[in-house]
Amino acid sequence: MLDLCLLGTSGMMPLPGRWLTALMARLGGSSLLVDCGEGTQIAIREKGWSVNPVDTICFTHYHGDHISGLPGLLLSMGNSCRTEPVTLIGPKGLEKIVNSLLVIAPGLPFKLEFIELNEKEQDIAVNGYNLRAFKVNHNVPCYGYTINVPRGGRFYPELAKENNVPVQLWNRLQKGAIIEHEGRIYTPDMVIGPPRKGIKVTYCTDTRPVQSLIENARNADLLICEGMYGEESKIQKAVENKHMTFCEAAQVAKEAEARELWLTHYSPSLLRPGDYIKDVKKIFPGSYAAKDCRSVTLGFPEEEN
Amino acid sequence: MLDLCLLGTSGMMPLPGRWLTALMARLGGSSLLVDCGEGTQIAIREKGWSVNPVDTICFTHYHGDHISGLPGLLLSMGNSCRTEPVTLIGPKGLEKIVNSLLVIAPGLPFKLEFIELNEKEQDIAVNGYNLRAFKVNHNVPCYGYTINVPRGGRFYPELAKENNVPVQLWNRLQKGAIIEHEGRIYTPDMVIGPPRKGIKVTYCTDTRPVQSLIENARNADLLICEGMYGEESKIQKAVENKHMTFCEAAQVAKEAEARELWLTHYSPSLLRPGDYIKDVKKIFPGSYAAKDCRSVTLGFPEEEN
Repeated sequence: MLDLCLLGTSGMMPLPGRWLTALMARLGGSSLLVDCGEGTQIAIREKGWSVNPVDTICFTHYHGDHISGLPGLLLSMGNSCRTEPVTLIGPKGLEKIVNSLLVIAPGLPFKLEFIELNEKEQDIAVNGYNLRAFKVNHNVPCYGYTINVPRGGRFYPELAKENNVPVQLWNRLQKGAIIEHEGRIYTPDMVIGPPRKGIKVTYCTDTRPVQSLIENARNADLLICEGMYGEESKIQKAVENKHMTFCEAAQVAKEAEARELWLTHYSPSLLRPGDYIKDVKKIFPGSYAAKDCRSVTLGFPEEEN
Repeated sequence: MLDLCLLGTSGMMPLPGRWLTALMARLGGSSLLVDCGEGTQIAIREKGWSVNPVDTICFTHYHGDHISGLPGLLLSMGNSCRTEPVTLIGPKGLEKIVNSLLVIAPGLPFKLEFIELNEKEQDIAVNGYNLRAFKVNHNVPCYGYTINVPRGGRFYPELAKENNVPVQLWNRLQKGAIIEHEGRIYTPDMVIGPPRKGIKVTYCTDTRPVQSLIENARNADLLICEGMYGEESKIQKAVENKHMTFCEAAQVAKEAEARELWLTHYSPSLLRPGDYIKDVKKIFPGSYAAKDCRSVTLGFPEEEN
């Protein structure tokens, strides 16, 4: 089960009633944050979640609205008696930038571990999460992230019997072990079927629509994507500032064949994002102009019998 | 007329419904901020005031909860098309710390001017404000600030006549000019009486109760003072962490003979500051457990005729 909360939906600056865009995920006791703007720690508390179990913080890029809340968050995590290390992930320059910000947060009671992204696409397995970072197209180096929750194959007792696997090995094989027993090697595929569809969530801001985003959001259960402007008339501004209109984001979701799209990272000038959603749904019916704290719990799909 | 808004009342960390402690003042078109924690810029917008005219930002000290909102505020001021310089005032190390934080706010469209405090007491006339900074007693170098709005003497036509001042000089002399006219020197004191009581506001957090605070808050119209703990039983904690209890702050206000005390900078553990105010008022009746956005407009006192 993957718990998700889009903590805020603002771009550029935090507003009363609209926190800066950031995503929090909870999976098996470990929390992950993507971006941390000014006020993100308050949004976490408003949601009723805790800052303490945030083991991983991913940054899309280093514009102030995506990282300005980091020193405050880390201080609060320290005040909540965290001592376990925290992994920070982001484009090149991460360690230097974070250390610069830590001038006002010295003496944290936990270590920071840094993973800097240098490739166009990079797979990272960290703190129980399977992440893929992929480069997008903004006016500074910027990455999107996909969270994958893989699901192993289904256990088939008939298959185990067919393969003459002793019953006492079934459980360990089902969990992925390779076992030598009485002179024979037993492998998991002797008792389980092929991997099943897991959970896939892709998060992306700030960028123009790009092929890497479409590819990485392919068949995602949820695509959380920036939509800086609701008005299609602002397309020129979107091109200049390397952002997207709602309709462009919907086109990405359509091409990626995602299941659902949450728009976020609204311009402060966009007062009522919901006003523009009707036209957006014509392009991609699963589109939502997200509000702060929009949440979902994603589980593995039910299997047909 | 001095407009004041205590933007927040939280200490240590921002909470839902309780912004970090900071004061905003408006005087003659120029705004001044004391401290700028994470979320302070949102509190300014909630109040309905603007970030653009903030000409001066004073820092008490550099713990994260007092300065973490600076990069975001400056970015928002830049986005609001400000081009006039901004003066920053604070303890030694200011320029280095601010430049370190600006790693996420490069290319601001206005200059920053730095005034670093080195003395125990320092008078600063800046952007229309008369400030006095005074050192207090925290676990890092920390200053309180007094805002003085001086008021010139009253104009007395009888005095002008007594001194044989030509009528055409009265207005300029009243405004403070020294004039040579037909071989004689005319000075303001020939038409106006002695300076009258102006407006005085003292702001102080974080500190133990100290004599410099009492002296600098002497006869203040308003003392805004930290009260980290409402419970007197937490006095030992207050001593250890170099903060104050409500009653200690009230004792300071009493000794300083201030007119009014607003308590602020509450510990996150202090859920209902108002619960403790009854005992505090026994020490100093003009005490208030301030809530976020407590505001007042102070004018010159009416004169007796």
